[in-house]
Amino acid sequence: MSMNVAVIGAGAWGIALSLQMARTGANVYLWSRKELPNPTNRTLSRLDCVPLPETITVSNQFPTQADITFLTVPLQHMRSILPHVSGNSPLIACCKGVETTSLKFPLEILEEFYPQREHGALSGPNFAHEVAKGYPTASVIASKHPELAQEWANKLSTSTFRLYANHDPIGVEIGGAAKNVFAIAAGLAMGAGLGENARASIITRGIAELSRLSIGLGGEPMTLSGLAGVGDMILTCTGQGSRNYSLGVELGQGKKLQEILAQRTTVAEGVTTAPALLKRAKQHHVNTPIIEAVTHILNEEITVQTAQNILMSRPLGNE
Amino acid sequence: MSMNVAVIGAGAWGIALSLQMARTGANVYLWSRKELPNPTNRTLSRLDCVPLPETITVSNQFPTQADITFLTVPLQHMRSILPHVSGNSPLIACCKGVETTSLKFPLEILEEFYPQREHGALSGPNFAHEVAKGYPTASVIASKHPELAQEWANKLSTSTFRLYANHDPIGVEIGGAAKNVFAIAAGLAMGAGLGENARASIITRGIAELSRLSIGLGGEPMTLSGLAGVGDMILTCTGQGSRNYSLGVELGQGKKLQEILAQRTTVAEGVTTAPALLKRAKQHHVNTPIIEAVTHILNEEITVQTAQNILMSRPLGNE
Repeated sequence: MSMNVAVIGAGAWGIALSLQMARTGANVYLWSRKELPNPTNRTLSRLDCVPLPETITVSNQFPTQADITFLTVPLQHMRSILPHVSGNSPLIACCKGVETTSLKFPLEILEEFYPQREHGALSGPNFAHEVAKGYPTASVIASKHPELAQEWANKLSTSTFRLYANHDPIGVEIGGAAKNVFAIAAGLAMGAGLGENARASIITRGIAELSRLSIGLGGEPMTLSGLAGVGDMILTCTGQGSRNYSLGVELGQGKKLQEILAQRTTVAEGVTTAPALLKRAKQHHVNTPIIEAVTHILNEEITVQTAQNILMSRPLGNE
Repeated sequence: MSMNVAVIGAGAWGIALSLQMARTGANVYLWSRKELPNPTNRTLSRLDCVPLPETITVSNQFPTQADITFLTVPLQHMRSILPHVSGNSPLIACCKGVETTSLKFPLEILEEFYPQREHGALSGPNFAHEVAKGYPTASVIASKHPELAQEWANKLSTSTFRLYANHDPIGVEIGGAAKNVFAIAAGLAMGAGLGENARASIITRGIAELSRLSIGLGGEPMTLSGLAGVGDMILTCTGQGSRNYSLGVELGQGKKLQEILAQRTTVAEGVTTAPALLKRAKQHHVNTPIIEAVTHILNEEITVQTAQNILMSRPLGNE
């Protein structure tokens, strides 16, 4: 019998994930706040390059039942959506970041609302438009219960979408939240003309920084070397389509943050994530020098040159 | 008193490293097989954008003494050069790869020739032309004796070239050897139109593959998540200047290897490293599916499509 999959949120990632879940043979129920499919070609405007098969139902009514529910709404809106996501299905967080008001990661919010339901996190180097088109993609699905993660991975993988089971949702969520901050850092380096060596080093030392943060929060360091850490970081910090990276480039070229934001209609999540993640790290007494430098640059408290001097003059340690 | 640093090999990396060592205040002796500085502007043709300071002596006579010696000659030539590198100075391997005849890594060859001298490896995301110009760069210097690595890191770091001490030369050498193979793999994915998700996943699963190889050879897995692993991999697999990456792209577009090689004057080291590294991994009973796929594609035994099918249909495991 086919699985019933609910996807909450019809942004680009919600649509792509719905298309992917339809490929597993599931019946998919995609909740959209307002947009309904174009009646002539059955597409949604956010990803109108790919038509929706008949096994995807799109509605602005919340689903009443499902075997598994994926949450793709922006993290800062998740708290207002969650009361409507009733039932007992496992909840899989696909949104990334830190809630700015509470400094919580997605699964900590799910735990607060639905302590009795099963929770997971899906993350990896996944540009939505490539997943939508069925390009080969790998990702992790994480639960603190390893057998549950393995069960989900087995049920939801296809020949083009390979899910690896992971038992460290904390590490996975740190990677997902921090990637946008490091994308800004990588862009800063390139915009300021520091070069490709500097960019590669920032990403790599970022992994070291996040591995320490993972240990500080009760997660594991190695998770950050996996698809939800290194993998997503590579995509976001070097891929052409990243809004956070391009914002970093402009900052590095000397533009003011307000000026950059005024010219954009899209959100660069790293701008709000950086200070929130820094606060959260400080709560756990973890030193995160690159996240700190990005935060101070965003606040116009230091220049890129000063940040470089600070980072390059830290005491020499082991790798 | 100034250190006396010898650099053996005046390719781009040897020149860049000499310039960097001169910045530490050292007297540098750069051995060049034949090329001597241009008398009017004191440059070497391989990196003629940067003039050599007076503290760098260039000669085609081997140095007779030094406090530390860096070996930057191509690995496949190291065996023929080593008998001439006399004295008792520590030898730091800066070349990367696996010797195709013996399947040995650089430090294993040093051990064979000079078991009584100290050995180290220097590796990281270091484009030579950026180091030559003094752009900010981070790298690791590795020795199985942690205090030695720390001493070198302290003596040789500057405000623009930051060395991290590392005590796992095996892991460092695996990263250095494999990066060119994974650059071909990343290029293959892009050339065949598989997309950026696939490329990021290949690099990341490459780290997992090399971490297993490191354990198999008596090294440590975490080293591959550092500058000599992830860092160098990011640079080589996404940077614009990589010969191995561009060779992969052409292969992915369907060109024949012989046809690509015939049109090039430069060497793409991954072509010879892939089969050698695969043999070495098999000796240690380590499974390296991506290195294996690249080898088979280079041998025209399988197509990119077949490789993709093989990689995506492996049993689903934990990350």
